[in-house]
Amino acid sequence: MKFFITIVCGIVLSVLIPFAGMSQAVKSDNIIPETNMRGGKYPQILPNHHVVFRIKAPDAKKVQIDLGKKYDMVKEGDGTWTTTTDSISEGFHYYSLIVDGVTVADPASESFYGMSRMASGIEIPFAGGDYYALKNVPHGDIRIKNYYSTITKSWRKVFIYTPPGYDVNTAKKYPVLYILHGGGEDERGWAQQGKTDVILDNLIAQKKAKPMLIVMPDANIGGGGFGEDGLKAFANEMKQNIIPFIEKNYRTLNTSNNRALAGLSMGGINTLYTGVYNTNLFGYLGVFSSGWIAPSQKDLANAQYDYLQKNRAMVEKNLKLLWVSTGMKEDIAYNNCKTMLAKFDELKIKYTYSEYPGGHTWPVWRNNLYNFAPLLFK
Amino acid sequence: MKFFITIVCGIVLSVLIPFAGMSQAVKSDNIIPETNMRGGKYPQILPNHHVVFRIKAPDAKKVQIDLGKKYDMVKEGDGTWTTTTDSISEGFHYYSLIVDGVTVADPASESFYGMSRMASGIEIPFAGGDYYALKNVPHGDIRIKNYYSTITKSWRKVFIYTPPGYDVNTAKKYPVLYILHGGGEDERGWAQQGKTDVILDNLIAQKKAKPMLIVMPDANIGGGGFGEDGLKAFANEMKQNIIPFIEKNYRTLNTSNNRALAGLSMGGINTLYTGVYNTNLFGYLGVFSSGWIAPSQKDLANAQYDYLQKNRAMVEKNLKLLWVSTGMKEDIAYNNCKTMLAKFDELKIKYTYSEYPGGHTWPVWRNNLYNFAPLLFK
Repeated sequence: MKFFITIVCGIVLSVLIPFAGMSQAVKSDNIIPETNMRGGKYPQILPNHHVVFRIKAPDAKKVQIDLGKKYDMVKEGDGTWTTTTDSISEGFHYYSLIVDGVTVADPASESFYGMSRMASGIEIPFAGGDYYALKNVPHGDIRIKNYYSTITKSWRKVFIYTPPGYDVNTAKKYPVLYILHGGGEDERGWAQQGKTDVILDNLIAQKKAKPMLIVMPDANIGGGGFGEDGLKAFANEMKQNIIPFIEKNYRTLNTSNNRALAGLSMGGINTLYTGVYNTNLFGYLGVFSSGWIAPSQKDLANAQYDYLQKNRAMVEKNLKLLWVSTGMKEDIAYNNCKTMLAKFDELKIKYTYSEYPGGHTWPVWRNNLYNFAPLLFK
Repeated sequence: MKFFITIVCGIVLSVLIPFAGMSQAVKSDNIIPETNMRGGKYPQILPNHHVVFRIKAPDAKKVQIDLGKKYDMVKEGDGTWTTTTDSISEGFHYYSLIVDGVTVADPASESFYGMSRMASGIEIPFAGGDYYALKNVPHGDIRIKNYYSTITKSWRKVFIYTPPGYDVNTAKKYPVLYILHGGGEDERGWAQQGKTDVILDNLIAQKKAKPMLIVMPDANIGGGGFGEDGLKAFANEMKQNIIPFIEKNYRTLNTSNNRALAGLSMGGINTLYTGVYNTNLFGYLGVFSSGWIAPSQKDLANAQYDYLQKNRAMVEKNLKLLWVSTGMKEDIAYNNCKTMLAKFDELKIKYTYSEYPGGHTWPVWRNNLYNFAPLLFK
């Protein structure tokens, strides 16, 4: 113990100190989001889905909430800052607190890995969100597993959903959906922000989806996901490490018709690169809020269109489903997606297009999973 | 979609923007902690385990790093603030960033639930920390599972470690260690801060510990952990919900000699309350950095000492091990623990006392698990 300082974590003390700015009563028709810290009364959702944020910051000069749109908070006499936002749409949204220009996670909420850092999340209740509500149905497990990558020469994490009954029906083998996060996110995205386990538990209970494994890898590899190096590195990681690891350690059906690959945003680009060039491996592809990026990925896009032109018959034979979706016109990927689909039309590549309002956000992607999973492994 | 605003998450943009204050090269003998955000060059650990923190905050008046001791950061010309800490001891430490008086998580590091909020963590490498290093040995899974509590009438999460081979040896049943987090933490503590899976994988590979399940519940129940209401609520939750759920859904050996209960800090108090009064259920108890708190828990302590005096023979017959540990004199629980042990001596209650330097911190608790697990289920 050569280098040693005593660090008092304040663990015990901190639970005895009421959280700053939380002494107000909650109005009975207001909602405390499930993403709040345990016992925290703010943020608080009004019945019209405007959100009230509060934070104690007597020494700060300027405090803002950033929900894509920035809201200036107003200082009250006791050093508490508050703001009420516009009405916020259903489901999960990232947000940040900005204190005198420094963007951080709000200590009042749970944090989620997104925007390349731990960012705050807020869950807005939604009448139509019943499909991602925890219910009294059989539940699967989310497993966190370490595997060794021969490409990065390091241990990497993968999250895996195993469906209800997996531990009991030990002779049964299952199809596998591999599903990819977006840029600035990682293997936690679909399990946490996406509520993948809850969505699948509910679909399986209603017999709308087949029991399946869902594998959520970390697609950040090869120095970045949007360039060809990153895309190629991930394709190799899937083929050389992830798929073999999963098929060795879990009871899986190992044919292309029992493998699907899908991803959102950057993960959609990975799906195009890893999936379209490997339809011998994947019978089903899902491209959510994505499409080759103009103009930076022009060469990658053209190479793929050439490939499709030359191999249309084989791709068509192999692929049982190419499912493409956006969060409609407010989705930052909308134009790229539509441009790509126009090219698919020109090349007579079959696909299914679906859209759901909400832009480039998790509420849309949860809904994508809810609609995509029932189409798989028929 | 009555209430709707468009939120651009900045996901795509954020991965293209280099992180503030991270343009400096890393000196070859400096260490980038594994807790840094992907690609982040700060915090940076010098060879003598002093830590350099940097953050861009041109508009802030005062910026500090709080590692138990507060370090004032110094502003440089470009609005970057920096500080170099004292030498920091081995392993995992919580820390905070303070921007103009507002305590938040540092966006440069991973966040962990502790101090009743998402707090930053930094992992200091340690020559003796080999026992919690990921190695090429068979690995178990960490599972995240939802169960329904009849006490809270809500779904709650529990983390479960299943050992290597659990999926393959489908006839084998396993003993179970139930292990509890501290105040201001939750079911994630032992899995994330504690590296429970890695520690057990290594112990099992060396045949130092028996393959076992480790169940990590959320002990925050009944309105707070230190009062009798909270302690009683957790004891009931264990008996009525958690143990039955685990034994129904996993292949467990269901006798007291195949059940252990341990906890750190508040979790140690829970262990005393749930464990000492239920030695018919648990053959092994571990009390880490804990002990009845003087004077607030005087009545609870005296009631337990009375119980032990009256039931010494039964408790002694039931308990194969009562293992008590502290982080030595710098541990905030040290005096409470020593007072309790003096009382145990007076009552002729057998226990094993162990200590390890580091105070009231996770490096100590990881080491506790490393030393406690091999003693179980002999």
